[in-house]
Amino acid sequence: MAQQLPLVIVGTVAFDSIETPFGKADRVIGGAGTYGALAASHFTKGIGLVSVIGDDFPEESLAMMRSRGIDTEGIQRVAGQESFFWAGKYHLDMNSRDTLETKLNVLADFDPVLPQAYRSPRLLMLGNLTPSVQMRVLDQMESRPDLIAMDTMNFWMDIAWDALLETIARVDLLTINDEEARQLSGERSLLKAARKIAKMGPRYLIIKKGEHGALLFGDGEIFFAPALPLEEVCDPTGAGDSFAGGLMGYLASQPQITFEHLKQGILCGSALASCTVEGFGTSSLEAVTDEVLQDRLRVFDRLTRISLG
Amino acid sequence: MAQQLPLVIVGTVAFDSIETPFGKADRVIGGAGTYGALAASHFTKGIGLVSVIGDDFPEESLAMMRSRGIDTEGIQRVAGQESFFWAGKYHLDMNSRDTLETKLNVLADFDPVLPQAYRSPRLLMLGNLTPSVQMRVLDQMESRPDLIAMDTMNFWMDIAWDALLETIARVDLLTINDEEARQLSGERSLLKAARKIAKMGPRYLIIKKGEHGALLFGDGEIFFAPALPLEEVCDPTGAGDSFAGGLMGYLASQPQITFEHLKQGILCGSALASCTVEGFGTSSLEAVTDEVLQDRLRVFDRLTRISLG
Repeated sequence: MAQQLPLVIVGTVAFDSIETPFGKADRVIGGAGTYGALAASHFTKGIGLVSVIGDDFPEESLAMMRSRGIDTEGIQRVAGQESFFWAGKYHLDMNSRDTLETKLNVLADFDPVLPQAYRSPRLLMLGNLTPSVQMRVLDQMESRPDLIAMDTMNFWMDIAWDALLETIARVDLLTINDEEARQLSGERSLLKAARKIAKMGPRYLIIKKGEHGALLFGDGEIFFAPALPLEEVCDPTGAGDSFAGGLMGYLASQPQITFEHLKQGILCGSALASCTVEGFGTSSLEAVTDEVLQDRLRVFDRLTRISLG
Repeated sequence: MAQQLPLVIVGTVAFDSIETPFGKADRVIGGAGTYGALAASHFTKGIGLVSVIGDDFPEESLAMMRSRGIDTEGIQRVAGQESFFWAGKYHLDMNSRDTLETKLNVLADFDPVLPQAYRSPRLLMLGNLTPSVQMRVLDQMESRPDLIAMDTMNFWMDIAWDALLETIARVDLLTINDEEARQLSGERSLLKAARKIAKMGPRYLIIKKGEHGALLFGDGEIFFAPALPLEEVCDPTGAGDSFAGGLMGYLASQPQITFEHLKQGILCGSALASCTVEGFGTSSLEAVTDEVLQDRLRVFDRLTRISLG
């Protein structure tokens, strides 16, 4: 039997054009799969990335991924078509943005077919995609991963409710933001929302609150991780994907999946997300060294530690 | 020499009419001074409360305060006038509210004259009032308190900028919310905002983020305290004042004022604020027992603790 992949990530590999109060980046590489796999690669090698691209996606970007331990065999290249493209403009507060353009291109007909080696990974991360595509991947699993994580968004709650619930019922960890948790559960209180979402299936729930940190629910416990206070947010694109990728990469590097490891993984994900937002596109995430990462983890530790007797 | 008061609080003692999605409360007692002193009284006795009321404020509410160790000699009663009155309605999200009515009444001409025993307290808390009134109190101090804390709001930034800056320059600890920190500093990043505000005078800064917790800056350190995830927020009125009062009461109970004690004090303040919002007006704050408080502090501890090696 071939060696088991520690982690498979399903998500977009794409181009983004980004405008923020600090500048512009035109057609830089992006996508949830790209950010997630780059973040995860800080902790583990042998990450299978499942995605779809067009003729236009540069071979050197794939080579860059491979040099970081990301397997690109799962990225289908569709001849004669263009890669998924998103253009957006962030408002001055950086918490909201307008989508200027979305071209689905190759994503419109994306039918993920997993290479054989990808069908029994230890961990699986389903990035934010149509629930039917996420389920298509689940259906190809030949053994149950130790943890299946799933990201989604309000858009699928609006247009694909039943398929979304069906997918959520099959995963162990759901990551959504606070407004999405409220929409999914119909509860204003996040405590009540978490309890309702647990009944939908996932053992663990992470509620992402951006600059306000993240909450982890599960095993009868709650954990709160702050976000790092930053000098400057240059470009928030990919922060959530870096967070999820960092978390999954950390978990893949650990022998067990426990609540305690999830807590530490959230701090790793937050640390990487804090790096991502300091530059445009994937530039600052690509530049992260182990030293930078360890420094940020130490800041987290100091940020919440009480040392009175 | 008379015994030194551990804490003097300056703030409104008033009536509130409150409407939230959970119900209504008509002309209940409220005001920053009331919430602050009640919260502080969980940790220390001998709190001098400086305020002003009209004929209409019930003697039994003052007696209730006295029974909790709050000295009411500093509350001036103005014959023939009414107490400060505020009426407000909270929106469904509980994060925003409309003021339906504000009647300054006795507050319009409030000139705080401190009883002799109040002029050399160990700690002083200046509640959110006109900066000129806050300064009038500072001018009556006969010895420098170990810590002078000050609360303020965007309103004074809009209409009394110079007097506000002059007051801020004279205090050790400023408590404001995130939007106010941005307005006061002109900086979007809270890290940069904190650095600018430190240059205005205060050694310590607390940025309150409501349901997203609080940040403490000072002595080259940053501390982040989460808010407790709550089942239900019934009435947010007085949460910020309970937070500040709980913090100051805790500090008054400690032999020294250090960054570590400020951290613990913030958790005490947050715990009391979480109690306040569970009922209308001061009802749930009044009902807090030591046991409830200790329980909440234990929840805080679990909420952010990492126990991996």
